[in-house]
Amino acid sequence: MDDTRHVKVLRCEGTERARLDDDIVVEEPLEIRVNNSSIGVTMRTPGADFNLAVGQLWTEGIIHTFAEIGTIAYCPNEDEPELRNVINVMLLDSSFALESTRRTWANSSCGLCGKSTIESIHRRFKRVSDSTVVDYQTLFELPERMRRYQTNFERTGGIHAAALFDASGRLVLIREDLGRHNAVDKVLGAALYAGVDTGEMILMVSGRLGFEIAQKAAVAGIPIIASVSAPSSLAVELANEFGITAAGFVRDRSMNIYSHPHRVLNGISEHFA
Amino acid sequence: MDDTRHVKVLRCEGTERARLDDDIVVEEPLEIRVNNSSIGVTMRTPGADFNLAVGQLWTEGIIHTFAEIGTIAYCPNEDEPELRNVINVMLLDSSFALESTRRTWANSSCGLCGKSTIESIHRRFKRVSDSTVVDYQTLFELPERMRRYQTNFERTGGIHAAALFDASGRLVLIREDLGRHNAVDKVLGAALYAGVDTGEMILMVSGRLGFEIAQKAAVAGIPIIASVSAPSSLAVELANEFGITAAGFVRDRSMNIYSHPHRVLNGISEHFA
Repeated sequence: MDDTRHVKVLRCEGTERARLDDDIVVEEPLEIRVNNSSIGVTMRTPGADFNLAVGQLWTEGIIHTFAEIGTIAYCPNEDEPELRNVINVMLLDSSFALESTRRTWANSSCGLCGKSTIESIHRRFKRVSDSTVVDYQTLFELPERMRRYQTNFERTGGIHAAALFDASGRLVLIREDLGRHNAVDKVLGAALYAGVDTGEMILMVSGRLGFEIAQKAAVAGIPIIASVSAPSSLAVELANEFGITAAGFVRDRSMNIYSHPHRVLNGISEHFA
Repeated sequence: MDDTRHVKVLRCEGTERARLDDDIVVEEPLEIRVNNSSIGVTMRTPGADFNLAVGQLWTEGIIHTFAEIGTIAYCPNEDEPELRNVINVMLLDSSFALESTRRTWANSSCGLCGKSTIESIHRRFKRVSDSTVVDYQTLFELPERMRRYQTNFERTGGIHAAALFDASGRLVLIREDLGRHNAVDKVLGAALYAGVDTGEMILMVSGRLGFEIAQKAAVAGIPIIASVSAPSSLAVELANEFGITAAGFVRDRSMNIYSHPHRVLNGISEHFA
């Protein structure tokens, strides 16, 4: 199963840095169709796709037993025959109508493969500015600074945060939500309301750095994204394409830089060529 | 902000157990409307809702500057005036049409408050069976057993898993995905395909236990859900209502049991009254 991908990262530990190979988890969109009608697009890790389709139909209440399914197959893509990002499930009951269910999550910019997804975003947005730079020591400190302001995390252990810092490491805005994407939407919404120039900010997130979060950052022109956790393949691809500096696993005075390390100062970029 | 909620939990550490108060993060649906048309329902933690609405409109490409917004207000709910789960954003451009964007995530069973959401599910599903019981020592071992089979986690640090165990702790099925919900759909889809009786299984998840995961478990008639992380308020409410045993923070030979502890054997239930 092609569910991880090799990438080159700049690994930073304290004052040491090295260019290493790393594995990141693959993220690709999957469109699920029932009787040839799309019920939505979901971002997923390729593999066990038929399981995913069957499970989603079951847990969304579209089927109740496996016997209701006639066939399951990937839809061929004429342009890219190797692409397996659309599944059609034919039910024995051919009267299934889309109106009887609601669409599941579908991102407004989702194409049917990572490449077309990123191209569609590219048409809408510009590359971010290169004028914002940050000292790597400052990046190291952001998770702890964010945690100090996370009023609800200590009590529940179950809430995500997203924060905007300026290039000197000063906390500008922070919002919490049990959903990672909601926390990002909240902090960006607060920034738009307050007139904060997000084009000069660092976005720090408490959870994984997936495609949707990278996309939200691109919309806001964020030059630097930092996460305490892992990025997905599509997030790294998007960050590369849009000129965004993406740092993952920022913890214990170490991190991996996955894209555009030139914004992280102290000679790090010269080792990355 | 009412973003955490007090609950009674049965705290288990090794062979010790105690009934404690605990805080869990609140999860409630929010419907966002633009010019009085719904663009979708999202599960969120109440608080900073206007930020969330503005941020989502921005990152979904519906607005580009704050100046495009005329007014933002909660829609009054005649039945429950204190409920603040619908927001309407009036744009200065009254020609915004829903067709120009795609709906964001909307769960097929989502009502507009936790209570109606759970009621709508209640009409569709029955309470789960009481015949499956598990020894608490077995529950303690599940995270480690699951981790041993997580082929991709060690390499990427960024992938979730969902596994079905039988009541003796034997691993039956496991699936991985970068999305927590996808991992659950995959493992339940695999179970439906293989004819596994999910009504006798324990569902173990590597991430947080939110409403959607609890709902998927309810559809599959799962009697026991275990998570290494925190549950949400709505997940606990749903587990209580459907007779599901929900265990959170299962790690280091300890856990919190949030609902129906009678399925967890070794005298635990007698302390919970």
